[in-house]
Amino acid sequence: MKRLGILISGRGSNMMALADAVRERRIPQAEIALVVSNAATAAGIERARGRSIPAVVLDHRGKTREEHDRAVAAELERCGVDLVCLAGYMRLLSPWFIRRYEHRVVNIHPSLLPAFPGLDAQKQAFDYGVKFTGCTVHLVDEELDHGPIVKQAVVAVEPDDSVETLSARILREEHKLYPQAVALLLSGRYRIEGRRVVEM
Amino acid sequence: MKRLGILISGRGSNMMALADAVRERRIPQAEIALVVSNAATAAGIERARGRSIPAVVLDHRGKTREEHDRAVAAELERCGVDLVCLAGYMRLLSPWFIRRYEHRVVNIHPSLLPAFPGLDAQKQAFDYGVKFTGCTVHLVDEELDHGPIVKQAVVAVEPDDSVETLSARILREEHKLYPQAVALLLSGRYRIEGRRVVEM
Repeated sequence: MKRLGILISGRGSNMMALADAVRERRIPQAEIALVVSNAATAAGIERARGRSIPAVVLDHRGKTREEHDRAVAAELERCGVDLVCLAGYMRLLSPWFIRRYEHRVVNIHPSLLPAFPGLDAQKQAFDYGVKFTGCTVHLVDEELDHGPIVKQAVVAVEPDDSVETLSARILREEHKLYPQAVALLLSGRYRIEGRRVVEM
Repeated sequence: MKRLGILISGRGSNMMALADAVRERRIPQAEIALVVSNAATAAGIERARGRSIPAVVLDHRGKTREEHDRAVAAELERCGVDLVCLAGYMRLLSPWFIRRYEHRVVNIHPSLLPAFPGLDAQKQAFDYGVKFTGCTVHLVDEELDHGPIVKQAVVAVEPDDSVETLSARILREEHKLYPQAVALLLSGRYRIEGRRVVEM
């Protein structure tokens, strides 16, 4: 049984997608060991508890980035977490955390990286006028939205789209893609060549 | 009848794709008025003449960028060209040319822009480890591989791909996409909002 830890800051919609996938065995032989939010107000905390998933708030305020990350890591290790999934976690991780969990932290981003890193990726893509955007699950390294890509999904921009309709379609793809990527990572059926993640 | 001018520097495979599309009326009511190469060695010159398409070499050496572009524009205007298509044209255009042909110069690039501008876009994408890349037809502005996007096509990167197999698949998509984009531009059935090209 592999144990997932999920870090959130908000509503945790991708957390719930992962929880659904675990329950339905689309992520086989896994359980969600812990949800951590850095924000006491995160709606995802109550949603996790509603599923009987252990969930804690660790407030980052008043601590250095590494101090906070050490507190998070202590919780993750107490729960025996194998893979850390970021799900709308609005904080950069410290180099200490990245090194401690090398190739064991994964993130989802609402664009086809390397296009449109950073905030408001859907609006960035819309305003740029791309005909296709999507979402990316990637391993986390020390650069923002940069590590090796595990999986991507493509979403077409339609002539009558707004940022809102486009964002909603991307989010639906995120909820499908993230469980697939986590299942791949837990299966071990991939190799990393340079920064290419190649399925085996 | 709309008149296309095509600028090349090499074999002109996208030029031939445009010529095929004109012949087969996939680009309706158009003809290729002129092919210009800046390189006397461009294989595309002979291929154009083999199709009875007027083709001239205008050597850029010994001239400033704008001097060369003025010579090119003189040829294009002599032939009454409405739309200028870059097809493997390995030179940056001068601001003078860009302004003179604003929204009337189009380029094709072998990636999903804005990802991987510049040279060797297919290899850039492969080495980055993206799961999807493709090609982009865009209007040309003063920044490299930057203007408003007319059309894009997606190409999946397969686990057993090499840069060569991936590049070949992208090129096949380019040969389909470029005629579609030129047909759209000539039809006038689009509007430009900011930098979004929206089909009507």
